[in-house]
Amino acid sequence: MVDLNLIQKLSRPSPSKIVLLTIDGLGGLPDPKTGKSELEVASIPNLDKLASQGITGMADPVGPGITPGSAPGHLALFGYDPLEYNIGRGVLEAIGIDIELKHGDVAARGNFCTIDDNGKVTDRRAGRISTEKCVELCRLLSGISMPNVKVSVYPVREHRFVAIFHGEYLDAQVTESDPQQIGVAPLEIKPLVKGDSGAIRLADIANRFISEAKDCLADHHPANMILLRGFSRQPRLPTMQEVYKLNPLAVAIYPMYRGLARLVGMEIAETGNTLEDEFETLNKHYQEHDFFFVHIKWTDSAGEDGDFSRKVKILEEIDAALPGLMELNPDVLVVTGDHSTPSVMQGHSWHPVPVLIVSQYCRPDPVTEFSEKAFLGGGLGRLSSKQIIHLAMANALKLNKYGA
Amino acid sequence: MVDLNLIQKLSRPSPSKIVLLTIDGLGGLPDPKTGKSELEVASIPNLDKLASQGITGMADPVGPGITPGSAPGHLALFGYDPLEYNIGRGVLEAIGIDIELKHGDVAARGNFCTIDDNGKVTDRRAGRISTEKCVELCRLLSGISMPNVKVSVYPVREHRFVAIFHGEYLDAQVTESDPQQIGVAPLEIKPLVKGDSGAIRLADIANRFISEAKDCLADHHPANMILLRGFSRQPRLPTMQEVYKLNPLAVAIYPMYRGLARLVGMEIAETGNTLEDEFETLNKHYQEHDFFFVHIKWTDSAGEDGDFSRKVKILEEIDAALPGLMELNPDVLVVTGDHSTPSVMQGHSWHPVPVLIVSQYCRPDPVTEFSEKAFLGGGLGRLSSKQIIHLAMANALKLNKYGA
Repeated sequence: MVDLNLIQKLSRPSPSKIVLLTIDGLGGLPDPKTGKSELEVASIPNLDKLASQGITGMADPVGPGITPGSAPGHLALFGYDPLEYNIGRGVLEAIGIDIELKHGDVAARGNFCTIDDNGKVTDRRAGRISTEKCVELCRLLSGISMPNVKVSVYPVREHRFVAIFHGEYLDAQVTESDPQQIGVAPLEIKPLVKGDSGAIRLADIANRFISEAKDCLADHHPANMILLRGFSRQPRLPTMQEVYKLNPLAVAIYPMYRGLARLVGMEIAETGNTLEDEFETLNKHYQEHDFFFVHIKWTDSAGEDGDFSRKVKILEEIDAALPGLMELNPDVLVVTGDHSTPSVMQGHSWHPVPVLIVSQYCRPDPVTEFSEKAFLGGGLGRLSSKQIIHLAMANALKLNKYGA
Repeated sequence: MVDLNLIQKLSRPSPSKIVLLTIDGLGGLPDPKTGKSELEVASIPNLDKLASQGITGMADPVGPGITPGSAPGHLALFGYDPLEYNIGRGVLEAIGIDIELKHGDVAARGNFCTIDDNGKVTDRRAGRISTEKCVELCRLLSGISMPNVKVSVYPVREHRFVAIFHGEYLDAQVTESDPQQIGVAPLEIKPLVKGDSGAIRLADIANRFISEAKDCLADHHPANMILLRGFSRQPRLPTMQEVYKLNPLAVAIYPMYRGLARLVGMEIAETGNTLEDEFETLNKHYQEHDFFFVHIKWTDSAGEDGDFSRKVKILEEIDAALPGLMELNPDVLVVTGDHSTPSVMQGHSWHPVPVLIVSQYCRPDPVTEFSEKAFLGGGLGRLSSKQIIHLAMANALKLNKYGA
């Protein structure tokens, strides 16, 4: 198996530049009314043109039938086996808002939520309170004092926050308090493994913290309770500098994707809140780096919302903005997604993701259209998402020959 | 994973015959002027006809994006995982010129080179001295006496030779003296792992040998110095007799390919220097064996030289000679390459290699043309090169059913 060790041995620095344009939730499914997917409905002449120039295929982020979360989907795109490197959601949220975790810290993702008089959850997102309100409530929760452990609470946006448990002998192997449905009470947190004293300790602390938080928030309806999930500690990943000898930059608006990029050593660019901002940021830093991870979120959001036509519209907006990117004339352009998010499924799915690579060394294939169906006949065939970066590196002439 | 152990359990001897026609560096890339690859430009009606009859696909020797050297490329074709079995260049060169390495011997590949008065390399190939001169100088170097170790020096061709270090406790994990560029002095050989006493010992001996060689060669400008690289010991591979229960014969003109074939247990046929000689040799020994590795080198050489039209011409010559091979009517004919060598890249590349299997049991596919693009639609799909021999064995009815 070609793994990070081998790639590290073969990789060599070079001035050539790779742009990995990641359209979150790129792959779709047909609208039953028309029989056409979001990509097939969208008018995307620039992507079609790139498909004609480059080589195309379909990639499995984890494996056939496996629906990936955002973390495995992105790790695979960065060339890290998502089954080997498992990043907890808490850690991801934490690093996405620039929190530096210390060894032993446990991070959990939190939601402010609404509970009724019987303690049952009536809104898992507390009516999506404002970020300002979230900041205020997090300050309140950070004031909760616990014996032998410090709990820091940081706002993310709207109802979302991160709780960091700093203390000794904490093990993150615990269940979650978020019941993932309304009409039931938040769950008690329990150790996942019997006899794991660090997990018993963390579960106890977390339950006590939640109880204190409930008291603190009593007068703050709709944000009168919290839900915690994704307890995790930060794994150690070899950086992209070590493995690929790249000097990578991430251009991403949303915290999680910046956090994930930082976890593999990418520098994080300051950027604005629009696609144009992201492309402008890419442009601005283009001379300083040799690998650019550009993350576009809204396709996934539209898919998750089941909004087929909004996903189509966003694809068209991306397409319209592409000439600006192409002016940079990157040595290698990769266009793909971290997973599919078909609007008709209103969520991530297991379907393979279209992948396009454009470089002067691509062997042409007969594909002339950017769509799931067209890419089936592509020259890349069916591949694993973690292999995409190998191909990008090869096309950028950044990999030495293996063996004599 | 299907591995050698499983194949060994399933394989059975039978009279059916497999011919593995290996066209070195077979895959190409389009000439930018015409948009057509070497295979697409070449007039190869016999290969096209075979493509119509057989089943086709594209094979990755090591993995997507990984450019294989000749050894990994061939090991994969023989069914050996090229990531598991790593053959050093020194060993390959040695066995390619019929040197039988003893347990513990370390082989290095050598070049005669030219250095200037400051000791800087001015020509890494010493003006490609004649093979006769190489023979003479190797005899000179073999006379160098070293304490506790014997160094044998064997000519290969032109400026190339092999140095074998026979001695106790030698470890091949050392750096190379070849700087791979001109204008700098040859490098000192150092152990790759700190504290490895065998490597320290070899590095010391090799450096002293190089120093003595420099004195010996002082009056032999342009061949007034040597460069050593690819220090390695011979790995133990299970033979093709053991794994496949085959009685294999190799027909190859160039030393390295004969050496590699010998490493997996193949008998090596005496043959001449032309394609016709090779096919005649195949013919002559056809009754004595059941597996034939026929290696054709010149496609790779043309690709490496960046000579698109010469590669086309050689493909046409191979095609013209094919009817002679087809008269043998092998039960299974495989036509493929060890890797791609696109003329436009002037070297090996990572692009997958066309593979064709012809047998009476092939499930037909719609492909009617022997080319990279046509084979994308082939019935074999995309496979790993090490799986090709499984298919050849299956089509020759030499593999038992797996499981009850």
